[in-house]
Amino acid sequence: MRIAELSRATGVSTATIKYYIRERLLPSGLLTSSNQAHYTEDHVHRLRLIRALMDLGGLTISRIRSIVAALDDPDRTLTPEAMTAAGSYAGPLAADPRTVESVRSLTEHRGWNVLVDSPEFAMVVELLDILYELGQERFADRLDDYAAAAEKVAAVDEEVLRSCDDAQSHAESLVVGTVLGDSLLSALRHMARAGRGTPPAPAFVTSGASEAGS
Amino acid sequence: MRIAELSRATGVSTATIKYYIRERLLPSGLLTSSNQAHYTEDHVHRLRLIRALMDLGGLTISRIRSIVAALDDPDRTLTPEAMTAAGSYAGPLAADPRTVESVRSLTEHRGWNVLVDSPEFAMVVELLDILYELGQERFADRLDDYAAAAEKVAAVDEEVLRSCDDAQSHAESLVVGTVLGDSLLSALRHMARAGRGTPPAPAFVTSGASEAGS
Repeated sequence: MRIAELSRATGVSTATIKYYIRERLLPSGLLTSSNQAHYTEDHVHRLRLIRALMDLGGLTISRIRSIVAALDDPDRTLTPEAMTAAGSYAGPLAADPRTVESVRSLTEHRGWNVLVDSPEFAMVVELLDILYELGQERFADRLDDYAAAAEKVAAVDEEVLRSCDDAQSHAESLVVGTVLGDSLLSALRHMARAGRGTPPAPAFVTSGASEAGS
Repeated sequence: MRIAELSRATGVSTATIKYYIRERLLPSGLLTSSNQAHYTEDHVHRLRLIRALMDLGGLTISRIRSIVAALDDPDRTLTPEAMTAAGSYAGPLAADPRTVESVRSLTEHRGWNVLVDSPEFAMVVELLDILYELGQERFADRLDDYAAAAEKVAAVDEEVLRSCDDAQSHAESLVVGTVLGDSLLSALRHMARAGRGTPPAPAFVTSGASEAGS
């Protein structure tokens, strides 16, 4: 199909399609003449994947670039960081040894075989430290309950991924399941909270910060 | 404190602090002379919150603006959309009635009292439809398992939020717990998967899309 048809099929403008090709998110079409390229159903699929990761997963262009590079190249591996909307906290914060110890003890208790210097471990430590710094130790203190829920999710992920029978579908399922799965879990969490009637906020009081600013 | 001290305390440059003030993320300081403003510990706290939501939660400036507006103003309410890195899928996709029905049946089965036209409901439907469109019905088919895990998370959220005794701490806990809690769950899910030894991808094969592009 021509670029105009690709645009119609996906709802992505031709200017944006060309931008994705320049940014190496989308492979270019097969040139059929000096000013015309031919696109296939693979392009339709890849464009949908890009938009879903961007719009619903909240991923940046550069994360998506590393994801599609890994999908297309057997020698690249996908890091968990590439598949999350989150980055690293840029403030002045070094990992608190007590936090490192509590995460290490969690992995031991849960029987998770995770290295202390793995990126997964570092992400959890960083988030907990920020929760403490923001005075939200209430959440950090329930780490084991959240970990138990995450373990259930991981077990389902595992079953789904085992059912993928070829490498390409496995790799794409891993990406989509992780990125959109995070968004789905977030949406389900909102829905469960709304549906269970989570206590609404008490009447607001004016915050200190807003007074200081007036 | 002066802006230079605020910058040192938070690791955020003075240029960025001024930008956040212009963007109404941060209240301005109290003017003590024509070219000097005084900042307080509330500013330190607010700056840390902004950076955490941005860096670790992956939220945009405009989402953070609506969050801090809701924290400071009793008349604004926080929507679940404001608290997620995800947006809406921009492609040509209308909600599939079968998906709507399966989500409705899920909420009934789970005993969640959620309206079909609520934003939470729409987010779940949209994500499922995209999963189907991307050929990842494997994940969509396990909806009830993911919902069970989300329900456990929501139950812990509920207990934590009940323990907040004033309105300001409740509102901020709701935001931080939701945004960073999503990131924490995502990190724990990665860690659980790594720790449980989720099957690695089979050897990659070259994808159709990359062939079409060469």
